[in-house]
Amino acid sequence: MSRTPQTPLNLSIRHLRAAYREGGLTPATLVEQIRARIAEHAEDNIWIHVLSDAELAPYLARLSETDPETLPLYGIPFAIKDNIDLAGVPTTAALPELAWTPERSATVVERLIAAGALPVGKTNLDQLATGLVGTRSPYGAVPNAFDPDYIAGGSSSGSAAAIAHGLVSFALGTDTAGSGRVPAALNNLVGIKPTRGLLSTRGVLPACRTLDCVSLFTLDLADADQLMPIVAGFDPEDPFARPAPSTPLRDQGATDASFRFGVPATLEWFGDTVSERLFEATVRRLRALGGEAVTIDFTPFSEAARLLYEGPWVAERYAAIEDWIRTRPETLHPVTRAIIEPAVEARAVDAFKAQYRLAEIKRAADACWSELDCILTPTIATPYRIAQVAADPIRLNSRLGYYTNFMNLLDLAAVAVPAGMRPDGLPFGVTLFGPAFSDVILARLAERLHLDPSQTAWPTQGATGHPVSPVSRWATGRADSRPADSPKETDPAMLPLVVCG
Amino acid sequence: MSRTPQTPLNLSIRHLRAAYREGGLTPATLVEQIRARIAEHAEDNIWIHVLSDAELAPYLARLSETDPETLPLYGIPFAIKDNIDLAGVPTTAALPELAWTPERSATVVERLIAAGALPVGKTNLDQLATGLVGTRSPYGAVPNAFDPDYIAGGSSSGSAAAIAHGLVSFALGTDTAGSGRVPAALNNLVGIKPTRGLLSTRGVLPACRTLDCVSLFTLDLADADQLMPIVAGFDPEDPFARPAPSTPLRDQGATDASFRFGVPATLEWFGDTVSERLFEATVRRLRALGGEAVTIDFTPFSEAARLLYEGPWVAERYAAIEDWIRTRPETLHPVTRAIIEPAVEARAVDAFKAQYRLAEIKRAADACWSELDCILTPTIATPYRIAQVAADPIRLNSRLGYYTNFMNLLDLAAVAVPAGMRPDGLPFGVTLFGPAFSDVILARLAERLHLDPSQTAWPTQGATGHPVSPVSRWATGRADSRPADSPKETDPAMLPLVVCG
Repeated sequence: MSRTPQTPLNLSIRHLRAAYREGGLTPATLVEQIRARIAEHAEDNIWIHVLSDAELAPYLARLSETDPETLPLYGIPFAIKDNIDLAGVPTTAALPELAWTPERSATVVERLIAAGALPVGKTNLDQLATGLVGTRSPYGAVPNAFDPDYIAGGSSSGSAAAIAHGLVSFALGTDTAGSGRVPAALNNLVGIKPTRGLLSTRGVLPACRTLDCVSLFTLDLADADQLMPIVAGFDPEDPFARPAPSTPLRDQGATDASFRFGVPATLEWFGDTVSERLFEATVRRLRALGGEAVTIDFTPFSEAARLLYEGPWVAERYAAIEDWIRTRPETLHPVTRAIIEPAVEARAVDAFKAQYRLAEIKRAADACWSELDCILTPTIATPYRIAQVAADPIRLNSRLGYYTNFMNLLDLAAVAVPAGMRPDGLPFGVTLFGPAFSDVILARLAERLHLDPSQTAWPTQGATGHPVSPVSRWATGRADSRPADSPKETDPAMLPLVVCG
Repeated sequence: MSRTPQTPLNLSIRHLRAAYREGGLTPATLVEQIRARIAEHAEDNIWIHVLSDAELAPYLARLSETDPETLPLYGIPFAIKDNIDLAGVPTTAALPELAWTPERSATVVERLIAAGALPVGKTNLDQLATGLVGTRSPYGAVPNAFDPDYIAGGSSSGSAAAIAHGLVSFALGTDTAGSGRVPAALNNLVGIKPTRGLLSTRGVLPACRTLDCVSLFTLDLADADQLMPIVAGFDPEDPFARPAPSTPLRDQGATDASFRFGVPATLEWFGDTVSERLFEATVRRLRALGGEAVTIDFTPFSEAARLLYEGPWVAERYAAIEDWIRTRPETLHPVTRAIIEPAVEARAVDAFKAQYRLAEIKRAADACWSELDCILTPTIATPYRIAQVAADPIRLNSRLGYYTNFMNLLDLAAVAVPAGMRPDGLPFGVTLFGPAFSDVILARLAERLHLDPSQTAWPTQGATGHPVSPVSRWATGRADSRPADSPKETDPAMLPLVVCG
């Protein structure tokens, strides 16, 4: 494109709702604006498929006949990782030879569309959702939204880049080993890795089917609050779905209560002192917010992390595509093939032994929850350049999973949240995690950190430059509590760009 | 032995407690009486190890210094299946070459001994708890307590025979595929197959470690009521232990409320019309007791049952003894070896695929619990002779598991309960099963059936001839409710034989 780059859109859900309600914005106008920005980011390899006018028409037609007030996600644009089905559009999982066109959308997509959300397209990923790098795709590596020399992270690379660049309000990812958290950290986003079974995986191509989660990328926790009650819920069509306990998904957890958070006794930084200092600052901020830091033994978690790729769970990735990999192995990305293909040799005896070991580790890990509300870790220890990953694809991928791989094996919930910017211009992020079904308390604690009024620079929405709204939980009817030094909603620089631009 | 057979002991827990309290009975006297009966049953292959005087001495010494009223199981004799550790005595699992002498008892044994119970010995079993027949043991086949031509059933064959013959008050079994229920049905006993994880499996040689349960054989549900609060409870040393929900394990479920029970639309009898008629009579009795019978589709349950031995779970049996079976396979019983050894070839890919299929089946099976309090089935379709099983060991074993194999795979709780006698003199039994943690309601419904005042013949305790006490739940402080036509506790024929005999 030869045009001057356009200002990134402010697509926060609250912002868009106000624009639809008050500003005369229509979904069709918004789609035009988004298309222009998508064209500018053509070299970022974000999309595997952008919906055509014809494909979008039915969604827009329905919205045009509907009162915006009647649908909680009226006209909210979102991206779908291309291992999640959208009816009528191919699902490739970045293995185009395998592609199929589903007649029905995945359950989470169905729920979002029913609530008024507008699917923009299917996003690039590490092939078969195997990887944390965002470079293992025939559709190209996805560059980091802040520095194109760096990886966007994966496997949900395109979904993270789409929201970080202001092309969608939120994005669906999947998260088996960290695919919903690593790209969040690398692109200044919130990454919700829900409790296993809370969001349906019907209509999602499995990676490790006993562990897979659908994840959410959002600009902030307020947007995640809007989405979770819509996408979460027991789905009888998903054999791994679990009913949530009766505690509500939304209002659990006081916003000003004291809390206890675990911090690993020893942390692995792979030499990155910048990340280390930012993490220490984050610990200090959480303490100032009322948290008591408790040093914990991280051994059970890191041992579980190693089990995921060193143990028999890789056989699940083989099982997911067995017919394909037996007959067309040459179609796979060479790194992906090198990881998955040997798993055919794994023994059932060892699969069960690993489950026994995991049960022992989980017992040790779970002992901490009687003392703690959550554990705080970096989301990744250090960012890598695309060239570094190309030179050492498996070892650096493993390093990226050091703080994420154990999460689903140990049946934990996690929220990845931005925690400052590095001097090199890349974002830094941390993860708060807790036991299954602690999703809401984690979101509340993560939000307190994200909107901490004491931080020196106010957080921005992805790579758009728009500040995160300082007001949270607005939809619950609580009074706003804007910190004195945070930007005001009425600041002219923050007027709805989708209306003015 | 050349002596005239002695009258079987009445060892019901209530009966013994009264004898200790009022009759001057002592544990040492009781042990003498039990030893005499054990000697009479030497040809029944019940015991792998009977505790010697020296081995019993510490238990008796402790009891002699204790007020009987202070220990809920003071001097109550019990048998331990020989895959469960008793400190200081070998555990063989009916594979004597593999034997070891543990320094510590299994958690369930520790709890029973702490409550005053008196271990009598270690009982015979299908080797490695693999089998439902009770004949796969170098210690010999265990004959049925009612007709020695017939099997006692397995794998907990010796435990069932020990209690059926009045040698112990209760017995510990294990139940992975039905080992705690099949022998209960064949020997006129109550068999409690608790919810997985409710009773600790620490100190138990695994069969399928993800599925194994410790089970109880008791004379009636009142005795089971005494035992469950003592043996059940979360054990942090068992990685597969699960905390029970907060509902009590004892008093849940009204004794006279109406209920709904499922009955399979099609039942498999393998040609046994006697069992079929007794089952129909049981359905009528449950209806008369306030139950509404609901026809259910049994397909998910029978499909899950087939998965257990046709699927990769056999690899767990291999994993449990891998080092042994690789080096000393010739020591195994030939049938046991033929079942376990091929599992080394099973693929992890197929183990995971079977777990996926199981999750789908479980979803289908669980749909019924919103409508039902329990499901009623026969415990076994038909009894087999020892000679029949010898001639066709694997096929007849599979038939015995038709109504039991699915239970732990589908995470269900079950109670096997006597339901009348066959014209051929063998007992008939049924099983009530329900979802995880429905243990107490199942026990209450099973007790209503067991003590149904309308039945033509009052149930007896195992093969002892002693009638089951018509009074239940006595320990909860409720008023007795003896049916008018049931035998009176003061009937001279039922005077405490352990005191008079």
